[in-house]
Amino acid sequence: VKNYINIGLFGLGTVGKGVVNQLNDNGSLIKKRLGREIRITRAVTANPDKERGIDLKNIQISNKINDIINDPEIDIVVELIGGIDLAKSIILQSLKKGKSVVTANKALLAECAEEIFNAAYTSKGLFGYEASVAGGIPIIRNIRESYSGDKIMEISGIINGTANYILSSMSEKNETFLSALKEAQEKGFAEADPTFDIEGIDAAHKLILLMNLSFNAIFDFKSLYIEGIAQIEPIDIEIADDFGYVVKLLGKARDDDKGFEARVHPTLVNKNSILASVNGAFNAVQVMGNFVGETLSYGAGAGSYPTSSAVLGDLIQIGRALSSSDTSSPPPLSFQIEHLRKKQILPIDELETEYYLRFTVLDKVGVLASLTKSLGENNISIRCMIQKSKEHVPGLPVAVVILTHIAREKDIRAAINEIDKMPIVTSPTRLIRIDP
Amino acid sequence: VKNYINIGLFGLGTVGKGVVNQLNDNGSLIKKRLGREIRITRAVTANPDKERGIDLKNIQISNKINDIINDPEIDIVVELIGGIDLAKSIILQSLKKGKSVVTANKALLAECAEEIFNAAYTSKGLFGYEASVAGGIPIIRNIRESYSGDKIMEISGIINGTANYILSSMSEKNETFLSALKEAQEKGFAEADPTFDIEGIDAAHKLILLMNLSFNAIFDFKSLYIEGIAQIEPIDIEIADDFGYVVKLLGKARDDDKGFEARVHPTLVNKNSILASVNGAFNAVQVMGNFVGETLSYGAGAGSYPTSSAVLGDLIQIGRALSSSDTSSPPPLSFQIEHLRKKQILPIDELETEYYLRFTVLDKVGVLASLTKSLGENNISIRCMIQKSKEHVPGLPVAVVILTHIAREKDIRAAINEIDKMPIVTSPTRLIRIDP
Repeated sequence: VKNYINIGLFGLGTVGKGVVNQLNDNGSLIKKRLGREIRITRAVTANPDKERGIDLKNIQISNKINDIINDPEIDIVVELIGGIDLAKSIILQSLKKGKSVVTANKALLAECAEEIFNAAYTSKGLFGYEASVAGGIPIIRNIRESYSGDKIMEISGIINGTANYILSSMSEKNETFLSALKEAQEKGFAEADPTFDIEGIDAAHKLILLMNLSFNAIFDFKSLYIEGIAQIEPIDIEIADDFGYVVKLLGKARDDDKGFEARVHPTLVNKNSILASVNGAFNAVQVMGNFVGETLSYGAGAGSYPTSSAVLGDLIQIGRALSSSDTSSPPPLSFQIEHLRKKQILPIDELETEYYLRFTVLDKVGVLASLTKSLGENNISIRCMIQKSKEHVPGLPVAVVILTHIAREKDIRAAINEIDKMPIVTSPTRLIRIDP
Repeated sequence: VKNYINIGLFGLGTVGKGVVNQLNDNGSLIKKRLGREIRITRAVTANPDKERGIDLKNIQISNKINDIINDPEIDIVVELIGGIDLAKSIILQSLKKGKSVVTANKALLAECAEEIFNAAYTSKGLFGYEASVAGGIPIIRNIRESYSGDKIMEISGIINGTANYILSSMSEKNETFLSALKEAQEKGFAEADPTFDIEGIDAAHKLILLMNLSFNAIFDFKSLYIEGIAQIEPIDIEIADDFGYVVKLLGKARDDDKGFEARVHPTLVNKNSILASVNGAFNAVQVMGNFVGETLSYGAGAGSYPTSSAVLGDLIQIGRALSSSDTSSPPPLSFQIEHLRKKQILPIDELETEYYLRFTVLDKVGVLASLTKSLGENNISIRCMIQKSKEHVPGLPVAVVILTHIAREKDIRAAINEIDKMPIVTSPTRLIRIDP
């Protein structure tokens, strides 16, 4: 068994650069998990000489597709150029040669599902496409493996970060669609040509892919109902809010007695649901299985690093399967055994966080001064304070609550220890840590 | 290659019965995914003759541990009896014999991590423990495989359903801890002896297991800081609410410059965060990786079926790896190729859901009657209606919004078509579907 896996990388754009950076940064960690090195030996890009500001040492770069496809030393081909025709040709040729393929190309997988998946099924190579739907969410592996004992009843999700960013802005800042779009473009959350995102086509690509996987079939992309968000007006968001809803671009598919329902359109979602709290460029996918029940996975929808993380997850999984001597299952604790160590947890005294402190004190002059003096002397700074005395009877104890800025647990305990000995304190102080 | 995988099942309690039922219900689906049958050939339980109300045909049931361990035909041992000593002995003996093992036993994995994982690493058998943390959430596989290219920086989560159910009740109904606990026990969300759940020990077992996996090390369970929820009072929940927080029992671990921080305790969580919207017996785990960024996985924390779903996911994954002739990676679209079909999506006209309809109409007598008449004639029943006229100028159009009960898209379109031709309607009606 070789002690490395050779990668041929098509595309050095946003995601391609992310993959190079992640291997540079996490390469030694990945070697401890996989038991061998993942190395990019070749990259093919339209402009091999362009300066990209990343460390490309040991990578042979060219603009000739066959430099990768015909290299017998390359184990896995990573397709990150996007688009349909050229990407399809690269993937089909690679699979035909028995190479494994990893791709992030949702448009291709959605629109040419039959051709690509037939090639993937019949190739000796393995096929990974986790990065094609919601980069930071392992929804492909969840459905393909974790829920493999379940009949999937329903999938629904916020699967376009640009549309969600725009709708979130409209909702938070009472903006029109066009001004929210402009802002999203300025901040890099929407492309110069945002058609695919705002018209729902990108979400539809992802939905059909999740359907193919969940319902174990090939569905025709053209039969999917698609409606974008360009017609949503501030008044709709405002009235929806009055009724307890937020507006989200949802992709939804159900396996129903009648047949398969599937659609992408703006949807009113109950404010109290988890989906409603998915804001900005984040994505979330709900899957309902007949045994697992209701599930939701949340993470970054796109971006260089979340997407490269998904590509690396696929590369490592395929890397395990390609090694014939050891089992292809990941090690029980993720690392290979020789890297496993016993490690220590820090004592709680060293924790630094924010604190909620509820003091029970007599309602006397000078009480607050005593509390704050002791806190100050223990390096604890106060963020805010309220005195709670619903039905206050003079002479009886009252609750004083103080929220602190970031403080050390050791200091907090020292202060409480001091304070609880004061005669003005009638019950032990309650401490609850705040998630900052 | 055999066309079946033989399972020996220890334990026919809540989860064991779930596994039997899931294989009875989803067996043919699972066969289409794995390419072979998963069958329980033997079960061992303390009371073999007890009536359990499930279909146990073809399963040989006894109370002798060796009936499974010494059966050379059994490929995977499933340990669902819980507890420490006997379960440990079963798992160690099975792994020593080269059998694969699947377990849901978080207490054992947390408290005897070194012994169990050493045995798992050195056995020829494979080891699955997805069911040991948050049954309905594939968090073990997410960390072990999907995030395997990432350095995990932080894990935090709501990983005890009983404690979360109690805190949610206290928050929603302004109950005391004791009355919320009693209600949870009556509804089956808390056990008669709830110590492990309310004292944070169960959450701590899960946290240490996630830490071992995320940080690729063995941590000492006894060094984990643990604080339960019994001391939380209604006043704390009320004041936290004033400050914009909810109280959650959080398990949190971080890989920090200083060392590994880890703790389980009640925590104030910002109301606007996703964790805050995880209510009742549900669980959620946040994982932060240096490339994938912020992620969250949500699902049922426990229960017969979500946990059996996790057991089945492990059985299928191990089943693939045990077959030597085909690749151990799951098929690209989950099903084996011979079961793959082209399938149709229903036309959008057949959708049945709730609708938000915004009509732009002249502010005249009889307008509402015209709208509601047309809706009624098209079988659309009205849930509520508001007229929005912020700065209404007589004679100018106003917005009338109607929310419908469940209706057919075809009927909605017919009604809108009719209504938009009325002279009182000045702009096309806007339709947004509601997620019911």
